[in-house]
Amino acid sequence: MRMYDIIAKKRDGFCLTREEIAFAVNGYVAGSVPDYQMSALLMAIYLRGMTDEETAVLTDVMAHSGEMVDLSAIQGIKVDKHSTGGVGDKTTLVIAPIVAACGVKIAKMSGRGLGHTGGTIDKMEAVPGTRTSLTQEEFFAQVNDIGIAVIGQSGEIAVADKKIYALRDVTATVGCIPLIASSIMSKKLAAGSDAILLDVTMGNGAFMKTLDEAIELARLMVSIGTAHGRQVAALITDMDKPLGHNIGNALEVAESVAVLRGHGPADLTEVCLQLASNMLYLAGKGDLRSCRALAESTLRDGTAYTKCRQMFAAQGGDVSVLDNPERFPKARYSYELTAKQAGYIAQNDVERIGNASVLLGAGRLKKDDAIDFAAGIIMHKKLGDVVKAGDAICTFYADDPALFEAAEEMYRGGLIIADQPPQLPPLVYARVTREGVERF
Amino acid sequence: MRMYDIIAKKRDGFCLTREEIAFAVNGYVAGSVPDYQMSALLMAIYLRGMTDEETAVLTDVMAHSGEMVDLSAIQGIKVDKHSTGGVGDKTTLVIAPIVAACGVKIAKMSGRGLGHTGGTIDKMEAVPGTRTSLTQEEFFAQVNDIGIAVIGQSGEIAVADKKIYALRDVTATVGCIPLIASSIMSKKLAAGSDAILLDVTMGNGAFMKTLDEAIELARLMVSIGTAHGRQVAALITDMDKPLGHNIGNALEVAESVAVLRGHGPADLTEVCLQLASNMLYLAGKGDLRSCRALAESTLRDGTAYTKCRQMFAAQGGDVSVLDNPERFPKARYSYELTAKQAGYIAQNDVERIGNASVLLGAGRLKKDDAIDFAAGIIMHKKLGDVVKAGDAICTFYADDPALFEAAEEMYRGGLIIADQPPQLPPLVYARVTREGVERF
Repeated sequence: MRMYDIIAKKRDGFCLTREEIAFAVNGYVAGSVPDYQMSALLMAIYLRGMTDEETAVLTDVMAHSGEMVDLSAIQGIKVDKHSTGGVGDKTTLVIAPIVAACGVKIAKMSGRGLGHTGGTIDKMEAVPGTRTSLTQEEFFAQVNDIGIAVIGQSGEIAVADKKIYALRDVTATVGCIPLIASSIMSKKLAAGSDAILLDVTMGNGAFMKTLDEAIELARLMVSIGTAHGRQVAALITDMDKPLGHNIGNALEVAESVAVLRGHGPADLTEVCLQLASNMLYLAGKGDLRSCRALAESTLRDGTAYTKCRQMFAAQGGDVSVLDNPERFPKARYSYELTAKQAGYIAQNDVERIGNASVLLGAGRLKKDDAIDFAAGIIMHKKLGDVVKAGDAICTFYADDPALFEAAEEMYRGGLIIADQPPQLPPLVYARVTREGVERF
Repeated sequence: MRMYDIIAKKRDGFCLTREEIAFAVNGYVAGSVPDYQMSALLMAIYLRGMTDEETAVLTDVMAHSGEMVDLSAIQGIKVDKHSTGGVGDKTTLVIAPIVAACGVKIAKMSGRGLGHTGGTIDKMEAVPGTRTSLTQEEFFAQVNDIGIAVIGQSGEIAVADKKIYALRDVTATVGCIPLIASSIMSKKLAAGSDAILLDVTMGNGAFMKTLDEAIELARLMVSIGTAHGRQVAALITDMDKPLGHNIGNALEVAESVAVLRGHGPADLTEVCLQLASNMLYLAGKGDLRSCRALAESTLRDGTAYTKCRQMFAAQGGDVSVLDNPERFPKARYSYELTAKQAGYIAQNDVERIGNASVLLGAGRLKKDDAIDFAAGIIMHKKLGDVVKAGDAICTFYADDPALFEAAEEMYRGGLIIADQPPQLPPLVYARVTREGVERF
């Protein structure tokens, strides 16, 4: 078998066999297939596509290229969740405690932020003392003990995906649905949970720009997971505006705590309840309506917040800052960005909001960049809100006032105030299960 | 400017600007663009195509990536010829002397053989003593003195094409008309002749498998050359069977000499006369009919053969072997391949004939392989010929009898003897000029 022939076959629009896909992927990991051949194959896949069967095989081969985590030492059903990325997306910090409070195990690995999107692990580390790197024994013991642990993703998981993703990132082959689906699902399958809820974000701050694309990606991932014997569903959620008001690591933890304590923003609370209900449903806790009631009860009776405190405490975090978010380390400087005219916020580009927060120090442009946990943005006016000239639209937080100018330029570049209100997107567009697509 | 954005633009089917093409090509030559990005771009070009304008720009950028040969020190019009490759294609050795005998200058650089196709430089070196590497001064002086010189291609010509071709060769991006056209024309423009005749071969032994593809490639190359102020035309010639009977370096020189002395095979003689007439036409020697008469006269009166002897003598070759081809070094062993049944030769795969000659030692699989000038094949029966069982179909020549078995298997694998005669292709399918396409 020769890599040349595999490239030529895909280039000409034919389907690759399991043997051919394994030859390419495993050869690339081993170094016998050079990167210039892999990038030619990736571009051919980007432009010629892959069938569902090919994508499932690619996922399987990439999952088995690294450690397949065995969670059988943890009793009960383990449920995982994945978001395709967004700005101000702190749902994991809310949902994981809700689900665990309902008695379903969360043994979750999460990622760090890169570019305009944030990551759960960074947010957790904003709570002083929190360890996000546990040994496997500590990880299992904590989940068996309190029902929840969220740690950083092991470097040994889906090593082929890691190497291929790095190549896609520099060869303009990221935005391809079969490649996105196999990348996400290879990691989720390797991470070992029985059930997986996918949060496919859609809108100008997400990879998927249209509902059709988002549904296609969701459908493909649900099909791959189901073929591998997992319970999988997906919600298509909006990313035309950030969830809640806060962007930045400590700011987002504080807002998550507010939701868990019953006084968070309505949009964030609602999306978290829908995601949590679906996770409980996949874990077999009843129909969607009763799962929703169960999730709501954990916010009302405080058990979700208690679970959140337990998790942080078990991982070494200082829970006093959760109880009193004003104790979070503060940014030294703040700056209020005001409306230059009256009207409706008719456009507020989410990718630009995310990039503004990166410029303030809250995120990373490159993998090794340091981040400032206190930096970020609190949005006072969001898409669709009415403003008067001079109203505060948002407040920037940073450790250096010199950062405000570039962040303001970035933020304002995506901001339009107009006489007419915009059409507001729904919070959740659709639900995709193995049975089909339900549009809302 | 970023290579990433250039890849993404072509991936999405947009046209690249001159600046973008130059950034990619020159960056690749300089090493600032890595091979994995270039191969992704090449696959995107393969699948998305390029406009004529983009192809002309790519050609220009590649031509200027190395030395642009200035032939102005040679008086008169210089005419060049390029074949897209074939088996038993010894036309240059016949045509160049004919054209020079008519007073049009030939200052030509040729290539070596690789894979199933042969190269003029190897064939010339089969004549003992022949130097194919001259200094620029020697080259110019020889052309000014006797009107003809054929030497090996300088490594300084179109260096970007050389590097990009090597990458295409391992990433399944060779067979793409804009990339083929720009590769050929960048070298031809850099080589400096005023007029260029393109011999676009078509059939199972050539890159172009259909007439439409061959015409498209020819049209594109004529258009690029014309845009650069050169006189360019193309003939689409058949490569469903080799020209003449002989394949192998010394064997092909002997057959070329036979044509020049007026007793060569009819098919080879006819194609050479058509190619030579078109070269004379491009050089302004009159209409096609009078150019044909001029070319024929040089075979009749011996001036073409005299020119051939002059050229070899000037380059150090032993012309006594031209006069007496039986003096060529002989292969130690020969083997006759016979027909197993009676009928018509209904199929005789040209690529397999070429590969059989490589197995006998006449060609190279890799660039650095040594070749045996005496090895090769003489075909006694060609496509369409009638055979009886036991008739000699061809004779193999090699320095080691152990080579015959694999060569026979290769040759017979493409040979079909049937009751019905095949449809025989014409020698020349079409002529493409700046005015349009003339199909025969």
